[in-house]
Amino acid sequence: MTAKIAQLSWICVVTLTLTSHLAAQDSIRRGHLTDTYRPVAGQLIGAALTDEVGWEKLIYLTTQVGHRLSGSIGLEKAIEWAGETMQKEGLENVTLQPVMVPHWVRGAEHAHVVGPVERRLSILGLGNSIGTGGETIEAPIEVVGSFDELEELGRERITGKIVLYAVDWEGYGRTVQYRSRGASEAARLGAVAALVRSATGNSLYTPHTGAMNYADDAPRIPAAAVTVEDAAWMRRMAEAGETVTVQLYMEAEMLPDAESANVIAEITGSEMPEEVVVMGGHYDSWDVGQGAHDDGAASIAAWHALTLIHQLGLRPRRTLRVVLWTNEENGLRGGNAYRDYVKDVIDNHVAAIEMDGGNERPIGFGVTVPGAQGPPRGIPGTPDQQAANSRTQSALDLTSQIGVLLEGIEGGLITSGGGGADIGPLMQEGVPGLALRTVGEHYFDWHHTDADTIDKVSPVDFKKAVAMLAVMGYVLADMPERLDGR
Amino acid sequence: MTAKIAQLSWICVVTLTLTSHLAAQDSIRRGHLTDTYRPVAGQLIGAALTDEVGWEKLIYLTTQVGHRLSGSIGLEKAIEWAGETMQKEGLENVTLQPVMVPHWVRGAEHAHVVGPVERRLSILGLGNSIGTGGETIEAPIEVVGSFDELEELGRERITGKIVLYAVDWEGYGRTVQYRSRGASEAARLGAVAALVRSATGNSLYTPHTGAMNYADDAPRIPAAAVTVEDAAWMRRMAEAGETVTVQLYMEAEMLPDAESANVIAEITGSEMPEEVVVMGGHYDSWDVGQGAHDDGAASIAAWHALTLIHQLGLRPRRTLRVVLWTNEENGLRGGNAYRDYVKDVIDNHVAAIEMDGGNERPIGFGVTVPGAQGPPRGIPGTPDQQAANSRTQSALDLTSQIGVLLEGIEGGLITSGGGGADIGPLMQEGVPGLALRTVGEHYFDWHHTDADTIDKVSPVDFKKAVAMLAVMGYVLADMPERLDGR
Repeated sequence: MTAKIAQLSWICVVTLTLTSHLAAQDSIRRGHLTDTYRPVAGQLIGAALTDEVGWEKLIYLTTQVGHRLSGSIGLEKAIEWAGETMQKEGLENVTLQPVMVPHWVRGAEHAHVVGPVERRLSILGLGNSIGTGGETIEAPIEVVGSFDELEELGRERITGKIVLYAVDWEGYGRTVQYRSRGASEAARLGAVAALVRSATGNSLYTPHTGAMNYADDAPRIPAAAVTVEDAAWMRRMAEAGETVTVQLYMEAEMLPDAESANVIAEITGSEMPEEVVVMGGHYDSWDVGQGAHDDGAASIAAWHALTLIHQLGLRPRRTLRVVLWTNEENGLRGGNAYRDYVKDVIDNHVAAIEMDGGNERPIGFGVTVPGAQGPPRGIPGTPDQQAANSRTQSALDLTSQIGVLLEGIEGGLITSGGGGADIGPLMQEGVPGLALRTVGEHYFDWHHTDADTIDKVSPVDFKKAVAMLAVMGYVLADMPERLDGR
Repeated sequence: MTAKIAQLSWICVVTLTLTSHLAAQDSIRRGHLTDTYRPVAGQLIGAALTDEVGWEKLIYLTTQVGHRLSGSIGLEKAIEWAGETMQKEGLENVTLQPVMVPHWVRGAEHAHVVGPVERRLSILGLGNSIGTGGETIEAPIEVVGSFDELEELGRERITGKIVLYAVDWEGYGRTVQYRSRGASEAARLGAVAALVRSATGNSLYTPHTGAMNYADDAPRIPAAAVTVEDAAWMRRMAEAGETVTVQLYMEAEMLPDAESANVIAEITGSEMPEEVVVMGGHYDSWDVGQGAHDDGAASIAAWHALTLIHQLGLRPRRTLRVVLWTNEENGLRGGNAYRDYVKDVIDNHVAAIEMDGGNERPIGFGVTVPGAQGPPRGIPGTPDQQAANSRTQSALDLTSQIGVLLEGIEGGLITSGGGGADIGPLMQEGVPGLALRTVGEHYFDWHHTDADTIDKVSPVDFKKAVAMLAVMGYVLADMPERLDGR
């Protein structure tokens, strides 16, 4: 071969390889579901993108109801309004499933630096924290960057101090442990209170609340979040050899459990009404901001997806159900209660979809079939694992075929890894879990703050989420196969 | 010509054209200053980028001194420390030029929504505002999106109300007018207080303060900034037909003028000590955050640039002077006092450099020679304008030659349009003004807030600013020509 022919030949090989590779990918993604559901997906997407009522519902929830902590009047009002509105919309089997929820209240709270300078600290008490017992705690700050540093300082240095976790941001998953168990770890060594750098990568002097938990074997001390700025400042002051002394006052307390409810509505299946696809978000929020991204937009999007399907006169073969779960933030009572509610028919749940990552540019869905587990390479898994792995592959294939229908709204990316806190109890019983995925670039800037407000939600992104939930929910409920492969 | 030759020929023409075009550009930029000052620029840039003392000075100022409002202990402490440290560093003619400054104090302040829901509003009283006279003002909110909307509503609707300017963000320059004169415009129509959406494009529930001014012919009413989130919320509530009622309490007041000072230090010129290049930033800040970007970093960068020049044993032919101006934020007394201080020798000021756009990625300098004005195209300007235009072109040529030396740190972009509030009084007398320019992508997120803290300043960007001011300041003070062309 001459050099030129060799070169041409190489180009042809590459071209052919690429072509067949693309074709192979295509065949994985596009399939019978794609063509079968193209017309109905078109109807649903068109309806969602031209709709205005869903967005108005979200405006009402965030603006006129506001935040919705478990046990609050806001959550009660939101639940009542949703139930009544769903009835008016003609959704079927509208049910307020009673759930008793923890009733934590923040009360007044404030903190001040009293030495070596005087200044205010912006704080947000952590959910479930106790208060300061009507007193003001005044103590020097001991700054630590990790649990290891705390241990190194030891009981002698920590006793009588307020421990500040001025930890580096390593993403929510890794950093949130200081919020969750920082108070108990500090209390074991004699600390009188704990302050935690807010769990975020970006801050404009914005404290972030969130749940903390007390270990059974440690004294209970009050815990609050401080801003990234103040955590950095106190760390620098410590580095400069200055001892910062802080006064902390918190009225937080846990009241007796309060009445709440999961809000449930559905379109009953035309052929297999006993089989269920359930989708939703959590309806409760923290007691700051408006719970717009977390998780108001998701709750309204799932609900309004069902409303649009109903208004278009569509009825899938299986039952398509929406649940607005209560008490995700500080108890997960709603998710557990729903699991108990459907306990005897849980095997009839063919899929559960949760949206709980904010409404910031939705891009697709993550999918998990419980029980699948990658065995070490080259070693076959147990028969159960192999079966689950095969069901996972099948579920990814099927959802990818549906994903193709969402590519026109950039919402069709299907990846493994789905689920959500509220559908966790269902997934533990084997129900496949899907998560509506978003880009999440700014989500943790707003998360659990006064800044989680509707001005941060794009109406276009919200409409896309409605469209995506409508298409995914409808097709999973209508398609010939069960997503779980049973 | 065959097609092939024609093609080659075309390529050559393009290449030659590009080459000569580049060469022409080169000749504008590179010049005698570039080569003459390459060694000294190398020394200065190398010293600035390896230095740690400047950054430590900025840490001390922001962390241990903190914010520095005119009349505050913080500003006093900062001035004293700078003067003493400059003396220790061996800078020449260290002077604290006395300046009497306005002494506005914020005092306690808070606002609450009392109807139709109850919630806290995060506010920051505007600088120069009066307080609420020991009382709590309670009044319904009237939301307007512009001065035109205010006028349309008229006296009947506005009387007795708190006016909220929930205006769209159209950049700082356009939007800040509602902060500056919103209170007086509302007061003319009978409003009892004014709230203003914070002047920012991005918010995480962060109020922004800043100066407001009362018109002489309008009643004085209290004025405060609210967050972007709360402004949007109240606007939506109004759109939903809900009347939001707010309680406002502010202790703000203007005390008698306080003693302050411009901090001045220099390296006296070796050949023309009477000719001066002056550079600096304003040393005061608002009473929130740490005044890190606005304008602590600039003040320390200019000062430390002079310190490094001195430590390298360099002495330019003209005097190079640093001024840390006092009271830029709410009075401009420092800039005016410096102009008065040098009044008799103002013609000896060959250039004034100000850095007051934050320290977020510095990119170059803007340059203005006062008096230059573009006449309508094709019509020659007045002889004075023509002379100023010619001086401007010459100043751009000269600074561009210096800019080439800063390209290695991406700080050499020279554009027309320089100046700054503190050097404004000098420029009014004809002194050419330079502004150190930064990208300013996030500057207005932090501006005048509790979030303007050193954790937002990159040490690398700070060192670049030191290097840029050192090189530009030194060469302007040493080069054969006067920048002003006189």
